[in-house]
Amino acid sequence: MFTSKDVMDLRARTGVGMMDCKKALEASDGDMEKAVEILREKGMAASAKRAGKIASQGIVDSYIHMGGKIGVMLEVNCETDFVARSDSFKELAHNICMQIAAAKPEYLRVEDVPADVIAKEKEILMAQIAQDPANSKKPANIIEKMVEGRIKKFYKENCLMEQVYVKDNEKTITQLVNEAVGQIGEKISVRRFVRYEMGEGLQKKEENFAAEVMEQVNKLANK
Amino acid sequence: MFTSKDVMDLRARTGVGMMDCKKALEASDGDMEKAVEILREKGMAASAKRAGKIASQGIVDSYIHMGGKIGVMLEVNCETDFVARSDSFKELAHNICMQIAAAKPEYLRVEDVPADVIAKEKEILMAQIAQDPANSKKPANIIEKMVEGRIKKFYKENCLMEQVYVKDNEKTITQLVNEAVGQIGEKISVRRFVRYEMGEGLQKKEENFAAEVMEQVNKLANK
Repeated sequence: MFTSKDVMDLRARTGVGMMDCKKALEASDGDMEKAVEILREKGMAASAKRAGKIASQGIVDSYIHMGGKIGVMLEVNCETDFVARSDSFKELAHNICMQIAAAKPEYLRVEDVPADVIAKEKEILMAQIAQDPANSKKPANIIEKMVEGRIKKFYKENCLMEQVYVKDNEKTITQLVNEAVGQIGEKISVRRFVRYEMGEGLQKKEENFAAEVMEQVNKLANK
Repeated sequence: MFTSKDVMDLRARTGVGMMDCKKALEASDGDMEKAVEILREKGMAASAKRAGKIASQGIVDSYIHMGGKIGVMLEVNCETDFVARSDSFKELAHNICMQIAAAKPEYLRVEDVPADVIAKEKEILMAQIAQDPANSKKPANIIEKMVEGRIKKFYKENCLMEQVYVKDNEKTITQLVNEAVGQIGEKISVRRFVRYEMGEGLQKKEENFAAEVMEQVNKLANK
């Protein structure tokens, strides 16, 4: 159907990563033009093209849910003020606000998760895995892969850009943004967000939750 | 007109701080009942009374200025959901949002300013004072008072609760909130806020500003 050279050529033409080029060629049955089109539709080709551009314009948007119980504020950047004022850009920003309200991400990107958070997650997962007798015969590398898989899931749940878009489960927020780049033709970057839940932490700090789980796990392990 | 015992009595009756009790008695020409009324009007008596209560209800509010160039999000707490849903509470929250948009506070309260920020401010002020030959003959305690005065000004400019209310220069945000406590009859606490300015820091970090000033000051000092 297609060779690895085709993948390389597609990559050179669009600037899109290897894996996505391969997938596009698979989807187009090796048809190069169709593959380019697929990537364009996904906004990936355009997105890669704009990667070096500076997005210093944009908007701050907010969304208040349930009459003030949840609030989200977001900054999304683009290249020009013209685009910043456009309806489609505003719509994108607002859809991302609603995503944050509904899906409660803690971080923007994978890189934003502090190393100690991941270390703690791994610790908890290892303890949970140790709990299940079915795992006792599994070799270390399999256990490691299980942990890796679960960390990936952690990213998908807690990082906005990795999350599945609540309004369309077929894509992630990264893909949603890339599509907008394809349609709008400017680099777009979600810069920062904040999410307030009324009263959160006033009764009890959420950070204690992981520690509590560990405590429970340890208790069970010591029985 | 009135004795220090009167001040103590007024304090015992209202729970309001000494200085405010003294001011109220001055304003009422020593009339105790009138002084209580003055403090009530200011919401101070009510505010002191509610100080022990728990404010775990409330709302998250936001305000977007100039079509997305500035955004503010705020959480204000009160004691009951009933009050949280009231128009006067919502109005208070929104007025504070607009205050934050306009007056750009960095911190919520005096206690929230990190010690090193104050240390750096003092350093800059001392250098500025040293610049002016008129200060060279002043004794150390006068210089200290000058610095103290300027730090107070720093708090008034950078801490939301200390700021002068932009819609009514006669009061601070603390007084605005205390008045609302008096009118609404519940403890109200401004819990947290965030202010985004579109593109801030994308070109240049604002934190460098203080360092730059120091550099300039030092250059001049070494001339």
